[in-house]
Amino acid sequence: MLGDISNKAAHMLSLPKVSDFFTRLIQRVAPKSYQQALGEVYVTQKFLENFSGDQVRFLARSFAVPGNHLGQQSHGYRWPYGPVAIVTPFNFPLEIPALQLMGALYMGNKPILKVDSKVSIVMEQMIRLLHHCGLPMEDLDFINSDGKTMNKLLLEANPRMTLFTGSSRVADKLAVDLKGRIKLEDAGFDWKILGPDVQEVDYVAWVCDQDAYACSGQKCSAQSIVFMHENWFKSSLISRMKDLAAKRKLEDLTIGPVLTFTTEAMLEHMNKLLQIPGSELLFGGKALENHSIPPIYGALKPTAIYVPLEEILKDGNYELVTREIFGPFQVVTDYKDNQLPRVLEALERMHAHLTAAVVSNDSLFLQEVIGKSVNGTTYAGLRARTTGAPQNHWFGPAGDPRGAGIGTPEAIKLVWSCHREIIYDIGPLPSHWEIPPAT
Amino acid sequence: MLGDISNKAAHMLSLPKVSDFFTRLIQRVAPKSYQQALGEVYVTQKFLENFSGDQVRFLARSFAVPGNHLGQQSHGYRWPYGPVAIVTPFNFPLEIPALQLMGALYMGNKPILKVDSKVSIVMEQMIRLLHHCGLPMEDLDFINSDGKTMNKLLLEANPRMTLFTGSSRVADKLAVDLKGRIKLEDAGFDWKILGPDVQEVDYVAWVCDQDAYACSGQKCSAQSIVFMHENWFKSSLISRMKDLAAKRKLEDLTIGPVLTFTTEAMLEHMNKLLQIPGSELLFGGKALENHSIPPIYGALKPTAIYVPLEEILKDGNYELVTREIFGPFQVVTDYKDNQLPRVLEALERMHAHLTAAVVSNDSLFLQEVIGKSVNGTTYAGLRARTTGAPQNHWFGPAGDPRGAGIGTPEAIKLVWSCHREIIYDIGPLPSHWEIPPAT
Amino acid sequence: MLGDISNKAAHMLSLPKVSDFFTRLIQRVAPKSYQQALGEVYVTQKFLENFSGDQVRFLARSFAVPGNHLGQQSHGYRWPYGPVAIVTPFNFPLEIPALQLMGALYMGNKPILKVDSKVSIVMEQMIRLLHHCGLPMEDLDFINSDGKTMNKLLLEANPRMTLFTGSSRVADKLAVDLKGRIKLEDAGFDWKILGPDVQEVDYVAWVCDQDAYACSGQKCSAQSIVFMHENWFKSSLISRMKDLAAKRKLEDLTIGPVLTFTTEAMLEHMNKLLQIPGSELLFGGKALENHSIPPIYGALKPTAIYVPLEEILKDGNYELVTREIFGPFQVVTDYKDNQLPRVLEALERMHAHLTAAVVSNDSLFLQEVIGKSVNGTTYAGLRARTTGAPQNHWFGPAGDPRGAGIGTPEAIKLVWSCHREIIYDIGPLPSHWEIPPAT
Amino acid sequence: MLGDISNKAAHMLSLPKVSDFFTRLIQRVAPKSYQQALGEVYVTQKFLENFSGDQVRFLARSFAVPGNHLGQQSHGYRWPYGPVAIVTPFNFPLEIPALQLMGALYMGNKPILKVDSKVSIVMEQMIRLLHHCGLPMEDLDFINSDGKTMNKLLLEANPRMTLFTGSSRVADKLAVDLKGRIKLEDAGFDWKILGPDVQEVDYVAWVCDQDAYACSGQKCSAQSIVFMHENWFKSSLISRMKDLAAKRKLEDLTIGPVLTFTTEAMLEHMNKLLQIPGSELLFGGKALENHSIPPIYGALKPTAIYVPLEEILKDGNYELVTREIFGPFQVVTDYKDNQLPRVLEALERMHAHLTAAVVSNDSLFLQEVIGKSVNGTTYAGLRARTTGAPQNHWFGPAGDPRGAGIGTPEAIKLVWSCHREIIYDIGPLPSHWEIPPAT
Repeated sequence: MLGDISNKAAHMLSLPKVSDFFTRLIQRVAPKSYQQALGEVYVTQKFLENFSGDQVRFLARSFAVPGNHLGQQSHGYRWPYGPVAIVTPFNFPLEIPALQLMGALYMGNKPILKVDSKVSIVMEQMIRLLHHCGLPMEDLDFINSDGKTMNKLLLEANPRMTLFTGSSRVADKLAVDLKGRIKLEDAGFDWKILGPDVQEVDYVAWVCDQDAYACSGQKCSAQSIVFMHENWFKSSLISRMKDLAAKRKLEDLTIGPVLTFTTEAMLEHMNKLLQIPGSELLFGGKALENHSIPPIYGALKPTAIYVPLEEILKDGNYELVTREIFGPFQVVTDYKDNQLPRVLEALERMHAHLTAAVVSNDSLFLQEVIGKSVNGTTYAGLRARTTGAPQNHWFGPAGDPRGAGIGTPEAIKLVWSCHREIIYDIGPLPSHWEIPPAT
Repeated sequence: MLGDISNKAAHMLSLPKVSDFFTRLIQRVAPKSYQQALGEVYVTQKFLENFSGDQVRFLARSFAVPGNHLGQQSHGYRWPYGPVAIVTPFNFPLEIPALQLMGALYMGNKPILKVDSKVSIVMEQMIRLLHHCGLPMEDLDFINSDGKTMNKLLLEANPRMTLFTGSSRVADKLAVDLKGRIKLEDAGFDWKILGPDVQEVDYVAWVCDQDAYACSGQKCSAQSIVFMHENWFKSSLISRMKDLAAKRKLEDLTIGPVLTFTTEAMLEHMNKLLQIPGSELLFGGKALENHSIPPIYGALKPTAIYVPLEEILKDGNYELVTREIFGPFQVVTDYKDNQLPRVLEALERMHAHLTAAVVSNDSLFLQEVIGKSVNGTTYAGLRARTTGAPQNHWFGPAGDPRGAGIGTPEAIKLVWSCHREIIYDIGPLPSHWEIPPAT
Repeated sequence: MLGDISNKAAHMLSLPKVSDFFTRLIQRVAPKSYQQALGEVYVTQKFLENFSGDQVRFLARSFAVPGNHLGQQSHGYRWPYGPVAIVTPFNFPLEIPALQLMGALYMGNKPILKVDSKVSIVMEQMIRLLHHCGLPMEDLDFINSDGKTMNKLLLEANPRMTLFTGSSRVADKLAVDLKGRIKLEDAGFDWKILGPDVQEVDYVAWVCDQDAYACSGQKCSAQSIVFMHENWFKSSLISRMKDLAAKRKLEDLTIGPVLTFTTEAMLEHMNKLLQIPGSELLFGGKALENHSIPPIYGALKPTAIYVPLEEILKDGNYELVTREIFGPFQVVTDYKDNQLPRVLEALERMHAHLTAAVVSNDSLFLQEVIGKSVNGTTYAGLRARTTGAPQNHWFGPAGDPRGAGIGTPEAIKLVWSCHREIIYDIGPLPSHWEIPPAT
Repeated sequence: MLGDISNKAAHMLSLPKVSDFFTRLIQRVAPKSYQQALGEVYVTQKFLENFSGDQVRFLARSFAVPGNHLGQQSHGYRWPYGPVAIVTPFNFPLEIPALQLMGALYMGNKPILKVDSKVSIVMEQMIRLLHHCGLPMEDLDFINSDGKTMNKLLLEANPRMTLFTGSSRVADKLAVDLKGRIKLEDAGFDWKILGPDVQEVDYVAWVCDQDAYACSGQKCSAQSIVFMHENWFKSSLISRMKDLAAKRKLEDLTIGPVLTFTTEAMLEHMNKLLQIPGSELLFGGKALENHSIPPIYGALKPTAIYVPLEEILKDGNYELVTREIFGPFQVVTDYKDNQLPRVLEALERMHAHLTAAVVSNDSLFLQEVIGKSVNGTTYAGLRARTTGAPQNHWFGPAGDPRGAGIGTPEAIKLVWSCHREIIYDIGPLPSHWEIPPAT
């Protein structure tokens, strides 16, 4: 049944009229360009196509192994939890809740969904669309509330599993409140490393610009720091990044309001960084002008700050430099061949391990960096990026047993089901069986 | 390398001299019969055989899926956590810590191991054996301490993952202390249901006796309650169970000391149950005699108490009846065909979901009970049991995202590794690629 | 790309106008009822839905295992053959060629397709639909010819793999001509066993009627012989089967022309069977009347002949009784409990092992029969059938390395790809490596 | 049971006394160095370790998918064929028959084994060892005969599957005789390509020497032709290969008798190659001296012949150059960047696709060559080789549905079992079910 619903819903999202409706609805509540909003709709459509037909039942595939005697066989199933909860943030009003909701349903759970109330209208419309495509009304609950009320509800309802996407602070609180019955996808201070082999500078500059500044940097996968090999640092890369950043404008929301930091807060953070010896402003660093964004939100030009590697590693500076700013803001540093171990040390000390990118086609360099890091979704190769994972790439952190994933069949199975082992042991008894002595 | 070590260690455990040494050592510290102690050694040996040769590397098998353009491919890896901790209880001094320790090592982690200090001498000897077989000294840490010290150490060392086997109370405390970075296998109030088809009464009586009273009931998989269809209840089953229980004796430790409950505590619990209307003592119910077991431990004859189903379900009684007694103690009840929904309701209300057994070869009955329950390791069929899972059956709870497993390749992968997605995207760029507009 | 095409084609087939068009087109060339023809369209639609979105790429999933030293990793891929051929028969003009064609394309092959020329118009229209949905013209070749020409073409073009569905005689010839570079799904003399537990007689009678006589018995999965436990034989089953058979009529093609046997040939075969001692005509056994079916085709009422089990097993009779009649014709026999080994012997001696059904919910009976037989698609349980496998059940023979499958992801991978192992071994060399002596 | 036997047999082969016995026994009948013979024993030991404990049962793992209604579930099993045959050649007297024999047994078949009678004494001893470790006498048949007798036996016994390792000529005959019920691993003209990035010349020279001349080139994976990028051709590689070849000597069998070609036949082939314009002898090209090898065998110094790429591709020359010489003989050629398509064309035209090596760490180069070739076991990267695949790398051809594999779990499953689908469909029926009209 869910295969049919998914197929119909995917078809509806593929209709230009419907797709445009959701894209504009997303833009009404989240500060992103038409293309970025459309991307959410497209990923949701493709995800639904992936679970058309029999693919939902294929998700529930189990395995069996022969036992020790005739009639015994052990089966490993992916089993639903039953009552579960989903809590999702403002920055992806459609994609994150839609994919997690469907994943929970595919595996046989009964979910209650709460989306950040600033943007929950998008998901409300999507649920109506799902109902239209045949989803029974009683299969899911949808709640509009503030975080406090939701917290209370979770404590009382005590769902067997809660999926939370959002800030690390709330994530840690929920982990304690729910005694660890939780899967998390929290914020990340995501890094990119450019290796020794410089090529296709235009392409890499464009990817850096998108990774750092698309959606005004308000993706949990946004590029927060980039480590450039000195070969890249000496190239025209930074000047091209600067050119690209300069083309972003408020009119088409390629740069726009920041919902969780004020302009002052971001500038203050920037000034602290600039006090570190050797630091300098590469570009940006100023408030946006001529706009009507309310002062409770932020409005900053795309900004990049250089900080020397050795300064980053100093105890006093490390926490400051690796603080995540959920806005159009990145740190840039450089390194020489013999400093690679210091770069790896910097990565090792970060505590959230979400996405990463290693931009190089040098096989031994890739092997060295990937083998010594633990980030979740990691792109490697000349075309590596940190953002823009489609529905066919697992997206999620690594190195944490609470870590959730989104998008792929593996992510759905891991987040929304648990292993259940059922051993069938029907006999017959061996002929002439006799009661053995007790042990 | 770990394949070689496993193979050598398995071979050593297969030598009668070594096997006998470990069996007797287990008996020195844990109250179980020679056969039950030998069972631990045997399961450990077989587990080590399972990961001989290349099988450790096969555990680390990853998968890859083609990407959207030439040069892109996404890989899903099982990745180690890095620094991890293992905390295990007194009742299986060898099997639980040995299997979890090797699992952690197989997946590439660096574990610190703490075994209940009453029995840690067994694992200390096992680690020496592993060193002898080639395990490098620095690959694991072994600590002897009380729980408080270990708790402090965990809070300071902050391992990326902690596996805890033991009581639900400590499990919940650790889940909070470690903010959910934990996998648990805690106690269970395990049930068995006997279906309408009565056959092989001797066999079923013997399995019930072993499930309830082997190791004096001190297994987390021990049968705590049995629901008998009236056909079974009217059969000779209970009298045969009584006969078998009567044969258990202190000399060969087929019945013995209970480490976590005193005799008084168990008798007091029994008396409370007997005050429920309709309850009665089926057999046992008396202290063991002529022994030198210190009064801080318990010493009770194998005991079974009948409580009517409708009484069990009453709010005032339910908590009392389903309280786990880690000793030779079980509750028995009966039901008629039309009461099956009430039985299922009783199961649904239990909160720990470890093992279970559905004794029947009636396909539709099995389907009904299994489909409406969530226990982890569940045996189904005439030969179903709750205890004695070998290394080739996943053993662990279901219905809880914190749930751990032990024994099988799936258990090792789930407990000791996390998903990491690496997307290789090496190009080439499409010819004539041009910078698109920002989004 | 193929995911998109599949999704669009599935959507088109879901439109009533298109679905009706293909159903009627099938009826124009193949003698089956509207429902049976519609079934082909529906299965094809669902199959295409299954490979929407990213599911085609998920089919090409590979795996990797760590090697012996840093930088080594072995990958197991499913690799296309390259140029391949598909030859399919008259009885499923859409479902068989469409599913095999798409499977070949999904795995990256370049297929040439030949459908029996009597019915090839259906697939010609389907290919036009695929082109309309975006399939490039050059991705496949479609040929209309007789068998001889196709045979010559195969010998000259020497495709790396040929999928043949059709008669055993042609299959064996092709296997020799193509030196075994072939996958086959040939005819089968399919059996059904009714176990000791009689229940739901109406249901089982209806399934027997459909299995034996739908499409006038012209399915390679049609029920050719049924072994009834004496409990069933004594029940009203046969009389109900007779009633159902009597309701089939030419007007709606629930009974119709037989394309590969004349009426005389079938009656002659029947008469030979009736000469076996103890045999008798249960029902049918007469030519259809009042029709315009040309005499080169057959026209027979649904027919069932009883032959005693012990006679079937005699050397002189066995070949005769187990000769497949591709028409509305089945053999019925009965057995007692102690004759089950003789029934199993009868199954073991058959040489084509396509589908089978074991109608029983007795677990031990199912275990015995399934464990001692080798048929491919085998249904087990009260609702077991031999025909009507949907796209989510693998359909194909077992026990033959040349055996093909159709429908599921496993079938596609097995038939249309081969294993290729690529071991990446990029280094680095161990430091201080020196040339060892030759070996 | 087979897990235990494998474990014991592996342990016995790990004893120096036993290992030395088999190594010397291999040397008695096959012309290879102690190290190469020991390699066979070691690989067999490790393979047996891999299937210790429960790993044999894990091989038989099945999967299941939920069906369309309550009570329906489809299971995909790997099912044994039953009676099967194994025919293996002279060059690996232990490894090939031992691994294939155990694979056949692991999957539940009953094999008859024939090893080339010149070397069958090795396997005869190995079977005695297996019997000693517990293998029942009746589980396999072992036959000593010439090929003709075996051919007759196969035609009469008609095994459901025959595994043949040996020459392409016999393989094709058997494929016809057995109507394609066969899996093959036949000879290969294996190629190596050296990419543009020259590094570690000593290492690559040593690998080339081993790949071409170990076992006097009598491996089906031996390097028959090497395509060198001009950067490598200009390097010191060829002179180093020459030096290494010169160190091989008859005393330790690092060079020795060739069993299937006489010296004259090899020299004659060489002379034909030298008549191609531009060809030249790089080294070797002379008969071995001072030996007692009978003239029915060959005795040639390690030999390498240069032939220009454009000449190789000419129609008259191609068949000659790519003729496999099962001896210490290789062809060398070179190419420039813009000739890579011509190299790929040369590969595409070869018809046996066994092993291959692409020596380069240039990601885009690897991608280009691997994506456009179809060889089976393919090594890629600086350390790539063509020979010496251990038991944990699938070894076998690709691009042929008859292709067999050896070594890994996947190889065992593919060669020694077939898919069988069993759909359990036990009900219950929907309430109020009624007989629908016939279709």
